[in-house]
Amino acid sequence: MTPPARRPTSADVAALAGVSRATVSMVLNGRVEGTVAAATQQRVLDAAEQLGYTRSALAISLKQQHTRTIGLITDEIATSPFAGRMARAASMTAAQRDYLVITVDLSLRDHSVADAARLLAERQVDGLIYATMGRVRVPVPQIPPGLPLVLLNCELDSAAGEEQLPTVVPDDYHGARRATRRLLDVGHERIVMLSGDDRSLAVLEREAGFRDELAEAGMSARILAAGWQMDDGYRTSRSLLAEDQPPTGLFCIRDRVAAGAIHAAACEGLEVPHDLSVIGFDDEDFFAEKLTPPLTTMALPHEQMGQRAMSLLLERLEPTGDRAQGSAGEPEAFPRERFLIDCPLVERESVGRPPLD
Amino acid sequence: MTPPARRPTSADVAALAGVSRATVSMVLNGRVEGTVAAATQQRVLDAAEQLGYTRSALAISLKQQHTRTIGLITDEIATSPFAGRMARAASMTAAQRDYLVITVDLSLRDHSVADAARLLAERQVDGLIYATMGRVRVPVPQIPPGLPLVLLNCELDSAAGEEQLPTVVPDDYHGARRATRRLLDVGHERIVMLSGDDRSLAVLEREAGFRDELAEAGMSARILAAGWQMDDGYRTSRSLLAEDQPPTGLFCIRDRVAAGAIHAAACEGLEVPHDLSVIGFDDEDFFAEKLTPPLTTMALPHEQMGQRAMSLLLERLEPTGDRAQGSAGEPEAFPRERFLIDCPLVERESVGRPPLD
Repeated sequence: MTPPARRPTSADVAALAGVSRATVSMVLNGRVEGTVAAATQQRVLDAAEQLGYTRSALAISLKQQHTRTIGLITDEIATSPFAGRMARAASMTAAQRDYLVITVDLSLRDHSVADAARLLAERQVDGLIYATMGRVRVPVPQIPPGLPLVLLNCELDSAAGEEQLPTVVPDDYHGARRATRRLLDVGHERIVMLSGDDRSLAVLEREAGFRDELAEAGMSARILAAGWQMDDGYRTSRSLLAEDQPPTGLFCIRDRVAAGAIHAAACEGLEVPHDLSVIGFDDEDFFAEKLTPPLTTMALPHEQMGQRAMSLLLERLEPTGDRAQGSAGEPEAFPRERFLIDCPLVERESVGRPPLD
Repeated sequence: MTPPARRPTSADVAALAGVSRATVSMVLNGRVEGTVAAATQQRVLDAAEQLGYTRSALAISLKQQHTRTIGLITDEIATSPFAGRMARAASMTAAQRDYLVITVDLSLRDHSVADAARLLAERQVDGLIYATMGRVRVPVPQIPPGLPLVLLNCELDSAAGEEQLPTVVPDDYHGARRATRRLLDVGHERIVMLSGDDRSLAVLEREAGFRDELAEAGMSARILAAGWQMDDGYRTSRSLLAEDQPPTGLFCIRDRVAAGAIHAAACEGLEVPHDLSVIGFDDEDFFAEKLTPPLTTMALPHEQMGQRAMSLLLERLEPTGDRAQGSAGEPEAFPRERFLIDCPLVERESVGRPPLD
């Protein structure tokens, strides 16, 4: 086999030897530790020789001395019911480019982002993603210099000043506008939002979207600080439905709150959507579609968010674009932008026309 | 400061330098890579010299060349709503002994247990835990030789023959007996179990517990294969409650099925527990206690399970017991036992006396 005209890469060695790039890296760095079969090691060494690939070629660019490992720092993702899809999508995107993701969860006692970053840096990760379960603002993470970082579902707080980092967040604002529009479109005029009882970014943006969409329709917004759980939705809905002119449409901050609202309606002898329309937010796995009736809701785009965050990071580590190739493999400037990912409407069975008075 | 009489350990160096043992290991192995501040490196080197701690002392026992990293292989834990407490408890137990847990999730495309174990071994973990989301049987995992492994929430299938591994699982059987006993104790005589629609270990053991407890009370068992989701519990309960002599007590395979049953009761104009008692299984976070009424249920002991699995592994890696010390640090034989962890009753408000006929 004739070596390719361009300088051979570890990918060429991997392809010829029929192994992963991680294995090539392990073998050529002598880090096999009994985990790579002798025959495989020989195949890698043969392939490297045949292609003229040497470790000194590797050493030309320090940037190529990757471990092909990405560190994922989470606040609770790995241990919470809500945002696992983000972590999974990020890991799958990494796996497609032969990277492994290792995770450190901050819900563990005594860990700060800085600690977790140091622990991961000690294990020689090539880059970091810091992901939060809920959409929140965070202080500038203290991480070892030179380690690229992408924020996922969180944003730097305003105290960060000029500091910026690439950030991937859901477009809660337009999601809330679309949910409200869905209720308006079928004729609801008494719409109430059951919101969260905090001032998180998700609450602020979803309330703003609700308010603005109603304002555009010439209506004023009624927003109740219910809370985030099923029993919060239940309690608030029971008292709402006992009013003289109860609402005919509820926009809930979250699917779990919507579940409480649907249960409250049943306890009042009301049917959803015949007597009351309910729309949620999240499209939580194994939840929204398992309610009775199945819940119409706005999907949090966790998969797209996880994919985007990982793609941004990998593109920084190993540029594939034209521009990058044009500058001889030098990575293009790390985009320090904020990427808003769309929250699509998931149509199911909990929204209908308002009942006739 | 006088060096201690016994041979100094990395823990002594860490204590004197005011850093973690991981940091000591990094510095003394030259793996600092710009992640440990120069002043800290100097402090570690000073402390090592002062105590007479040398790398050649370390080299006396290969066993002590730990990376203080444990690999956690999961099928879906990191990305599923259900068993995150296990992973968190395992990580916390590890952190208490200054170990870091790194996770590989098998729900990623193309990963087998063997692949994940190899990837983790390449990153020089000291030991492995293989944890499954649900309680299942698994084939003997193919892992690199010499790497200790503990099974968490899964057991080797019978084809494994003589092969055995330390295994930590919940005691579903006695949990189900206790749930059934709870309904019997307040006088229920028409009790139905809404079970899962598969033959998983959880289903088999919970059904056996239900059957045996009723048999001991001289009653026969009625078990319906409802399914595992809220809408499964809803559908099955709607038809049950429409019977001439509907059950007064339901034992549900899972909290989510119980939630469907409670909603079905409300749609039939029945109140829980006044007209119908419902008991679940799992004590799912942010779920069982957020239902209306709050659900009486059997807790899956995920925290205890995660702790126990990690303790077993760490005890193998760094024995703390008398016996271990007696044999000069040599680890005692790795216990190849099956540890059954208790499922306690969590009393809330969904169980009461049966209604008068």
